[in-house]
Amino acid sequence: MEFTISQIAHLLNGEVEGDGFQRVNRLDKIQDGMPGGITFLSNLKYEPYIYQTKSSAVIVSKNFVPSKPVATTLIRVKDAYTGFTQLLEAVEKIGKNQLNGTEEPAYMDSSSSMDVDGYRGAFSYIGKNCKIGKNVKIYPHVFIGDDVVIGDHCTLYAGVKIMKKTQIGSYCEFHPGAVIGSDGFGFAPQEDGTYKNIPQLGNVVIDDYVSIGANSTVDCATIGSTRIGRGVKIDNQVQIAHNVVIGDNTVLASQSGIAGSTVVGKNCVFGGKTAAVGHINIADNTTVAGSTGIMKSVTTPGQTFLGFIGFDIKDFLKSYAIFKKLPQLQNKLKELEKKQ
Amino acid sequence: MEFTISQIAHLLNGEVEGDGFQRVNRLDKIQDGMPGGITFLSNLKYEPYIYQTKSSAVIVSKNFVPSKPVATTLIRVKDAYTGFTQLLEAVEKIGKNQLNGTEEPAYMDSSSSMDVDGYRGAFSYIGKNCKIGKNVKIYPHVFIGDDVVIGDHCTLYAGVKIMKKTQIGSYCEFHPGAVIGSDGFGFAPQEDGTYKNIPQLGNVVIDDYVSIGANSTVDCATIGSTRIGRGVKIDNQVQIAHNVVIGDNTVLASQSGIAGSTVVGKNCVFGGKTAAVGHINIADNTTVAGSTGIMKSVTTPGQTFLGFIGFDIKDFLKSYAIFKKLPQLQNKLKELEKKQ
Amino acid sequence: MEFTISQIAHLLNGEVEGDGFQRVNRLDKIQDGMPGGITFLSNLKYEPYIYQTKSSAVIVSKNFVPSKPVATTLIRVKDAYTGFTQLLEAVEKIGKNQLNGTEEPAYMDSSSSMDVDGYRGAFSYIGKNCKIGKNVKIYPHVFIGDDVVIGDHCTLYAGVKIMKKTQIGSYCEFHPGAVIGSDGFGFAPQEDGTYKNIPQLGNVVIDDYVSIGANSTVDCATIGSTRIGRGVKIDNQVQIAHNVVIGDNTVLASQSGIAGSTVVGKNCVFGGKTAAVGHINIADNTTVAGSTGIMKSVTTPGQTFLGFIGFDIKDFLKSYAIFKKLPQLQNKLKELEKKQ
Repeated sequence: MEFTISQIAHLLNGEVEGDGFQRVNRLDKIQDGMPGGITFLSNLKYEPYIYQTKSSAVIVSKNFVPSKPVATTLIRVKDAYTGFTQLLEAVEKIGKNQLNGTEEPAYMDSSSSMDVDGYRGAFSYIGKNCKIGKNVKIYPHVFIGDDVVIGDHCTLYAGVKIMKKTQIGSYCEFHPGAVIGSDGFGFAPQEDGTYKNIPQLGNVVIDDYVSIGANSTVDCATIGSTRIGRGVKIDNQVQIAHNVVIGDNTVLASQSGIAGSTVVGKNCVFGGKTAAVGHINIADNTTVAGSTGIMKSVTTPGQTFLGFIGFDIKDFLKSYAIFKKLPQLQNKLKELEKKQ
Repeated sequence: MEFTISQIAHLLNGEVEGDGFQRVNRLDKIQDGMPGGITFLSNLKYEPYIYQTKSSAVIVSKNFVPSKPVATTLIRVKDAYTGFTQLLEAVEKIGKNQLNGTEEPAYMDSSSSMDVDGYRGAFSYIGKNCKIGKNVKIYPHVFIGDDVVIGDHCTLYAGVKIMKKTQIGSYCEFHPGAVIGSDGFGFAPQEDGTYKNIPQLGNVVIDDYVSIGANSTVDCATIGSTRIGRGVKIDNQVQIAHNVVIGDNTVLASQSGIAGSTVVGKNCVFGGKTAAVGHINIADNTTVAGSTGIMKSVTTPGQTFLGFIGFDIKDFLKSYAIFKKLPQLQNKLKELEKKQ
Repeated sequence: MEFTISQIAHLLNGEVEGDGFQRVNRLDKIQDGMPGGITFLSNLKYEPYIYQTKSSAVIVSKNFVPSKPVATTLIRVKDAYTGFTQLLEAVEKIGKNQLNGTEEPAYMDSSSSMDVDGYRGAFSYIGKNCKIGKNVKIYPHVFIGDDVVIGDHCTLYAGVKIMKKTQIGSYCEFHPGAVIGSDGFGFAPQEDGTYKNIPQLGNVVIDDYVSIGANSTVDCATIGSTRIGRGVKIDNQVQIAHNVVIGDNTVLASQSGIAGSTVVGKNCVFGGKTAAVGHINIADNTTVAGSTGIMKSVTTPGQTFLGFIGFDIKDFLKSYAIFKKLPQLQNKLKELEKKQ
């Protein structure tokens, strides 16, 4: 598909600076653009590339002032990043396979129902008493256990596993290999040193607009529900243990983990490889920087944590700077002692 | 299903305090109980809720003394947590789908055998020369490679992958997406900077009563066996590398990892996100607190470790407390130097 | 299969010391060898076992000088480890099931093609417009999306998921449950605190001789490609985010993670549980020790990093040694202050 730069500017509600009649048919990264492509400049770290790029057009923000001549055509929009995202969405819509119907063999128990406009891939499995809404895409090798409810406009990519009694809202995405509703890790220690399995009889409840990444795992509650709030975004290989509650619009980056029964507030951000111990509360708007462990409840909203055992990020960085120079500090102390 | 509180007390060998004729049909969390539900109080952190809960009954320990009036009916048992677990088990048994038979299409090579009272879900796959015991539940999308032996009463949830030559005991559970017997990570560095694949020809041997969590991975040995001892409990997203040995009744929490050829003792506890390097031995009854790395052998049993490179937990906490105040410590040192 | 020790020595281009007529039919670990087996001694840490082993033969390096009498037959080769690896390869070749043909039911869209000498396992799925080369083994439950290209001699183990538009070279291995080309984690924060999904329209490009471990995830690029260089070896449960580039012959151990748009050089080694933040460059030949986080670009090649926020490994170990003794250091300071 090919469009003129002017057509794209029109779509993005932007203004053309340069030749709007050229045609583009490809999205480029600014550092390796080629003629016929369109790219964008948002993070000014990448500004040097705009003076070299061979892309035919660059989307920039209204207020961008080039410090050197720019050879390419510009499309000026309110915000370059948002504009480029709009373009991505448009391309996605055009390009998206209109998946629907059922590829055989697929398995659905006769007690379950699914709206006819959805897609069921080959080798997908739907157990008993499931209710699946409108326009749901179920890719190959998806497993849906008994008594599952899924809202409208959800996508379950290849190999997603939704265990029994899970309840899912609308507009959710589950990326390949994600597991929802697996048994919580609950074992009662016995006097002889063995462990006895504690049945996990609760479920997982997921609100609307949730995204769960590839090979992530969300365990069901022992009793009651593990809850994932509206608009929560979970990256790949994240672990959410049993009875956890994640507040609305909280984001968890890859390989983070929240231990059992912890309640995470709204609008929090967990960086990659972060961890929170079990049975604590984390206030709204908490930011946990990468690799940090949260070991006790956070009661004041809006703080940022860093550290092996996390504390205030500025304080941690000060301490860590001195940690790096501990040998010098020790030497100074020794000298002082000698002088005594 | 509905029972009177007295019937449940009878099941748990407990005593009713209050109205035993009321009927309950649901398990509640104490903090959000409603009439018709039954809950429990074990951790006294949750004691305040017993004075507010609307559940019809609460299981408590024999020696629990309320500090305020309790409106609900109590069931007094030897230990509240154990009692509630017994109730969960009873409910699980009643509620459990008696899965058996084969859903088509399922694949089993004609050289393999499986006891007739088991369950094979649709799209499950069993390779050549496998022997599968009594009452084994094989859910959809399970893959079992060639020459695998599985004992009695095991459950393999959706999408579990058991690679060739794996040997599994009885009463084991494999949660969705777990991979057992994948190739160990073995590559021989070549002079030109490339790596040559070292064939991994060993297997995995798993004893009885083992549980392995969702999306966890256990690699096969290069030669010989990777061994998981009796009663070992492994949480989600745990990595066990080739030739590792895990002793009986050891517990590994989510996202922990044990590197190649390390031998872990019995009755150890590894917290979430812990790590042990390869080729070391870890004594029995070792506890590794969350996020801790174990970098050398542990020879004395019964120790508890904490830290980026783990050492004694009490010592680590003392050092870390001072680490947090390093800027003050540095300032004091500077003042002393000035005074010299 | 049984061979004489002399036959094996001949295969490995080695010399027999002892009885070459004995027959062996099994590979042993030196510490638990039994008659009829063959083992090796490379790491001299294991030397004591050569004086006790009951294996019939041990492969040793030409220059190995026993310090005590050895009861078993020796095969002396240039390098013991390489020799044993050659033996493993020979056994693997003999033992390997010559998998080919298609097990039914398997699904392949009629627009896709695959060389006839390959293998398609039952319940494998191949979408539209895929081109798959010679001698490719596709195990059960593998998912291959639309427009995927796979070269020759690749193996995709059970449950691997290759998302649309992925391009894969030759001689690659994908271990069970690996996910290639899942959507990158891209969300644009909105003014109301919610996040808007940014379509991920790029792909993943994987060069020759790459190995990707069980349940690892490699995300597709937002635009352009996430790139995995020639000969890269990735262990289990590793996360590679969108737009990352991994240079040739770089090795990433289990549970490591590279955040979005980071460019990793050639011949790097990332230990287990390591992390690199997004949007940085890491020079060639960088070594990142286990659990270490890399938080800014590394410009000088050949360095080794260690630490919660990684810095030079020797410096870190010095600082950490003092960290462990911070209580004593603090006491000394207090004494000095008293004396003032």
